[in-house]
Amino acid sequence: LCPPGVLPLCCRPPAWDRAPRQPPGLPLAPCRSFSNNKIQVELDESSGVAMMKFKSPPVNSLSLDFLTEFSISLEKLENDRACRGVIITSAVPKIFSSGLDIMEMCGKSVEHYAEFWRAVQEMWLRLYGSSMVTVAAVNGSSPAGGCLIALSCDYRIMAENPKFSIGLNEAQLGIVAPFWFKDLFVNVVGHRTAECSLQLGSLYPAPEARRFGLVDELVPEEKLLEKAAAVMAQWLALPDHARQLTKSMMRKALLDRLVAHREEDIKNFISFISKESIQKSLRMYMEMLKKRKS
Amino acid sequence: LCPPGVLPLCCRPPAWDRAPRQPPGLPLAPCRSFSNNKIQVELDESSGVAMMKFKSPPVNSLSLDFLTEFSISLEKLENDRACRGVIITSAVPKIFSSGLDIMEMCGKSVEHYAEFWRAVQEMWLRLYGSSMVTVAAVNGSSPAGGCLIALSCDYRIMAENPKFSIGLNEAQLGIVAPFWFKDLFVNVVGHRTAECSLQLGSLYPAPEARRFGLVDELVPEEKLLEKAAAVMAQWLALPDHARQLTKSMMRKALLDRLVAHREEDIKNFISFISKESIQKSLRMYMEMLKKRKS
Amino acid sequence: LCPPGVLPLCCRPPAWDRAPRQPPGLPLAPCRSFSNNKIQVELDESSGVAMMKFKSPPVNSLSLDFLTEFSISLEKLENDRACRGVIITSAVPKIFSSGLDIMEMCGKSVEHYAEFWRAVQEMWLRLYGSSMVTVAAVNGSSPAGGCLIALSCDYRIMAENPKFSIGLNEAQLGIVAPFWFKDLFVNVVGHRTAECSLQLGSLYPAPEARRFGLVDELVPEEKLLEKAAAVMAQWLALPDHARQLTKSMMRKALLDRLVAHREEDIKNFISFISKESIQKSLRMYMEMLKKRKS
Repeated sequence: LCPPGVLPLCCRPPAWDRAPRQPPGLPLAPCRSFSNNKIQVELDESSGVAMMKFKSPPVNSLSLDFLTEFSISLEKLENDRACRGVIITSAVPKIFSSGLDIMEMCGKSVEHYAEFWRAVQEMWLRLYGSSMVTVAAVNGSSPAGGCLIALSCDYRIMAENPKFSIGLNEAQLGIVAPFWFKDLFVNVVGHRTAECSLQLGSLYPAPEARRFGLVDELVPEEKLLEKAAAVMAQWLALPDHARQLTKSMMRKALLDRLVAHREEDIKNFISFISKESIQKSLRMYMEMLKKRKS
Repeated sequence: LCPPGVLPLCCRPPAWDRAPRQPPGLPLAPCRSFSNNKIQVELDESSGVAMMKFKSPPVNSLSLDFLTEFSISLEKLENDRACRGVIITSAVPKIFSSGLDIMEMCGKSVEHYAEFWRAVQEMWLRLYGSSMVTVAAVNGSSPAGGCLIALSCDYRIMAENPKFSIGLNEAQLGIVAPFWFKDLFVNVVGHRTAECSLQLGSLYPAPEARRFGLVDELVPEEKLLEKAAAVMAQWLALPDHARQLTKSMMRKALLDRLVAHREEDIKNFISFISKESIQKSLRMYMEMLKKRKS
Repeated sequence: LCPPGVLPLCCRPPAWDRAPRQPPGLPLAPCRSFSNNKIQVELDESSGVAMMKFKSPPVNSLSLDFLTEFSISLEKLENDRACRGVIITSAVPKIFSSGLDIMEMCGKSVEHYAEFWRAVQEMWLRLYGSSMVTVAAVNGSSPAGGCLIALSCDYRIMAENPKFSIGLNEAQLGIVAPFWFKDLFVNVVGHRTAECSLQLGSLYPAPEARRFGLVDELVPEEKLLEKAAAVMAQWLALPDHARQLTKSMMRKALLDRLVAHREEDIKNFISFISKESIQKSLRMYMEMLKKRKS
């Protein structure tokens, strides 16, 4: 994707990215060597649009490996001057992403929790802070972290199938969405809807999600990518520089807030997830999922 | 309601409640001895839901006595581990609450104004900061402070009678809603609607209030309590701990802001209400109310 | 308009106006001597309502002269105790205002850019911070700075002609709306709509603008002023003092933010507008406008 020696011209890295990295940070691969194990990336150089397809069956859960690959892929595209926009979708039928991988949060060491949570943060800082146009083509259910990915894009199109649902349902699992999930959600749907929805851990069928602005548009599933390409073309018709500065102006406050509280947020996550009561809830939830499958 | 020696287990008091009390604070009664003069409280231990009925005719106005009893009742329920949710409604026909008692703001001493305003703040900090699920079953008109009570709950259901109206109509009386009424209103209906509505002191018939989200749902009056119980059951189906942390995350900024500016807010109230022009407005308003009655 | 020796009684100048002026500030004329070159102002003393008509053909663009006259007119009315409200409309067919005058931003000196931008800020601080009731009667298209003027009023009524459009379309010209345009826009239409709309530089036909609250009401063009007068009467029915304090409470945070960052905002504008790439964009845009005309 990324010819050697090419320096990013249009895409100055966002401000949060110029701060010195935390020592135990995400080991970012150099630009040219990345393997596409869990995410398939294709860049159409003529349009400047990359297609990113999650292909980590059964449910595209956001494991440490998935998150790392996602961040690396985003960084590469960000630094590739041939790329101006990304469409994010799923290669797995019926699911966009099931959200954070519960396996990474269950019975692991404190060090593992820290590494995992830092990878979640890193992914979000890259995606929400991207200077590229980002369009989510949500072709399946998208709970919790899956919804976070969609919310972090510039535009959300969802397949109009009422069997597909989307929402920040953490409360249903007995866990709490971190403050930056909340800030993001408030920005998209407003304070009142966010308050009610986060407390109830609500998942919304696509048509309902559309009604209150959690997604921007519904189209028949077979027309989803075509529509995403059309929306992308509309956004890319604008001059990059003004659009990027505008995007940064709208998103800087939230990005800065996480960057300022990043270590504290990791500590909070570790302390919460290490509680025996929370571990028990998660184990019960996983049992339930296993039973459902069989 | 509250067996002796029971310590609250599920409900850690919210952060604002752990700060040292102001010396001239609300004289909170010990847990077991409270009289139900103006508010009837019944706890159904099987469901964990308390019903709180305002019964202070003619209009459930928020006098110092009413506010004190309201705060004490809320504190008791908060500390009662058998109680997880409260439904707030009125036992007086056609009125939920008429708001702050103008008698407490007219021709009284500076000390009285301070005590009264502290009681208003205390009630709001307890209600908005409650870790219980709070549902307002608005079965009558609900102007000014009555609207504040409804806005502070987790969910608002209103009788669909267009003769019942709700809103923050302070401007119509020539007075100004304090900043925390405003912050709360903005969180529920958004900045634009709040700005317009507060300047005009608008009261909205129930159907209109529903349209822009000032109330969440309308039902025929005879089904109001049944619906409130159903909504409560839905909220109580969630694990308490995650729901409470989520609620606190959503509401902490507003609660903290009042706690930080509490004494200043009291001073502002005293200085405003002591003005002869304001006293005159309030006297004229009371005259008008008296004439209406006769 | 303004009898000699009259001190403003009802309208205490807003807080931002009591700070010492910046030395190179807007040269405000003394109260009695103003010429109506670009804006026609008529005060009806019986109703207390002034009508302000933009009459600077061909498109009421906001030149330095226009902005200066606008600020002076607003200041006079603010200080005139006979005036309680202003209706702002256009005397030029089909256009309310085309926004900031590009001629003022093209090929001029750094000193000129500074003077111009200070005049833009001054106009906005006066209009958004006015203690009078302000109603925009938008009787034509209203892009960019024209939209800013409408957004800064208390209420927006637009002619229901779908050929008239309104919006903050700066991004389409390759320029970026400053943070206070953005803050204002977020307050009126919410964060999500503002983010999308600012990035795309969207202009909305009147009916669409109404749908998401960018304007409050649509009426047939011939009834626009009649409707504006009726809305004004409704707002003036409220006691001035409470309404003004409420308005100030809602708007103070935004006004304070610009006052605190005024010099920085001017520097940002100069540095951005002085870029050769931006100058080139603006020249191309002006060429396009010229071709359209001929």
